[in-house]
Amino acid sequence: MSTVALDRAIIERIVRQIVTKQAPAAPAPSEPSSSVDSVQSRLVVSISARHCHLTQEHVEILFGPGHQLTPMKNLYQDGFYAAEETVMIVGPKRRMLPTVRILGPVRNASQVELAFTDSISLGIDAPVRHSGDIRGTPGCVIVGPKGVVELSEGVIRAARHVHMNMKDAEAYGVKPKDFMKLRIEAPQCTVTFEDLLVRADETSKLEVHIDTDEGNACFLDSATKVELLKQDHDCACKKH
Amino acid sequence: MSTVALDRAIIERIVRQIVTKQAPAAPAPSEPSSSVDSVQSRLVVSISARHCHLTQEHVEILFGPGHQLTPMKNLYQDGFYAAEETVMIVGPKRRMLPTVRILGPVRNASQVELAFTDSISLGIDAPVRHSGDIRGTPGCVIVGPKGVVELSEGVIRAARHVHMNMKDAEAYGVKPKDFMKLRIEAPQCTVTFEDLLVRADETSKLEVHIDTDEGNACFLDSATKVELLKQDHDCACKKH
Repeated sequence: MSTVALDRAIIERIVRQIVTKQAPAAPAPSEPSSSVDSVQSRLVVSISARHCHLTQEHVEILFGPGHQLTPMKNLYQDGFYAAEETVMIVGPKRRMLPTVRILGPVRNASQVELAFTDSISLGIDAPVRHSGDIRGTPGCVIVGPKGVVELSEGVIRAARHVHMNMKDAEAYGVKPKDFMKLRIEAPQCTVTFEDLLVRADETSKLEVHIDTDEGNACFLDSATKVELLKQDHDCACKKH
Repeated sequence: MSTVALDRAIIERIVRQIVTKQAPAAPAPSEPSSSVDSVQSRLVVSISARHCHLTQEHVEILFGPGHQLTPMKNLYQDGFYAAEETVMIVGPKRRMLPTVRILGPVRNASQVELAFTDSISLGIDAPVRHSGDIRGTPGCVIVGPKGVVELSEGVIRAARHVHMNMKDAEAYGVKPKDFMKLRIEAPQCTVTFEDLLVRADETSKLEVHIDTDEGNACFLDSATKVELLKQDHDCACKKH
């Protein structure tokens, strides 16, 4: 069985972000976001590298009693952060990912989010699921410096989604749980991703999350234009 | 710098193929292919994993004087094959890919085709190019059992493309060097790839080539429908 030492340093960056280049600076918070164009100008597309969310109980098993996650870098969404702490994820055939970042704050259930490439390397057939929807998904072993957690379920490929506030949703003409699509224009690599779940609430910033495989497929770093569209927008053509 | 032993056995398969499931069996060669629908029914989408093409001179340096490539598996296009022989590809920082398959027959110029993930792991900033268009691209070192070749150029990320014969091109209303797009419908992972170069000649079979990153992004193995479309097909909507 051939193996290769794959340096993940470059793709390990937890969140790479591209702000649409065609747009002016984000409007001040007091400005109304009434048109799609003005909303689009604030669109951020982020690549989520593999990571995990943990319960406080699991944090303490892995890092010691009373341990609290240490924020290292704030994520784009307010209140969320990449923690200093990382864990090792071990699959069923003792294949492992040595350094998987924990995102905080802690949650009610632990969950490991992988790209397809990661799930192949771990030997786990992780289903595409939306965050939190882990019933019946495969488990894994999580190894920390002070202990080990055997997760009976919770390993997923995170489904594409877009965060936004209710005003943005109104401007786009969508509701929570609708689907949208994202067109990323890049030299020779233009891609449209469909099936982006709308996760709208009162406070989220407008941000699409795709995984590393998706980011690599469209060569996001070279993107020249990013457009978020309704899944079934007005179009006379039935081929979309 | 964190590294991880990534088992590539599963994604090493040189060509994974999906034949569109919505279609009946391919028509007999004598049938006319006059409509897009009848052409579409023969559409094959293949994932090209990393591989290289070599000159006969380089084959002999790497494998010994007089060596001929040994066909291991025929590719979908007649006359082409994955060879038994593999080489090691070494990047500028002595990072390497230990087992890169050679595709035959030999060519006039040696060339290494990588996915984005591979180019990151090798530390080579490979540009997106169409096969054969290697001027000014980065080089690498190729290591075989009998010798070493230092390639001054030839490392690329292969651009998406579609092979077809001239009758297919006519049915689609495209010419060689036009661009098309491919919509792959898969549960929660539907993707449309634009910028597929048309490579049409008298004899090629209808086949799209995408790389492993692109195949992983759309979860090709789970695809339920595949459609090849003109890049600018009839559509009243200007958003595509």
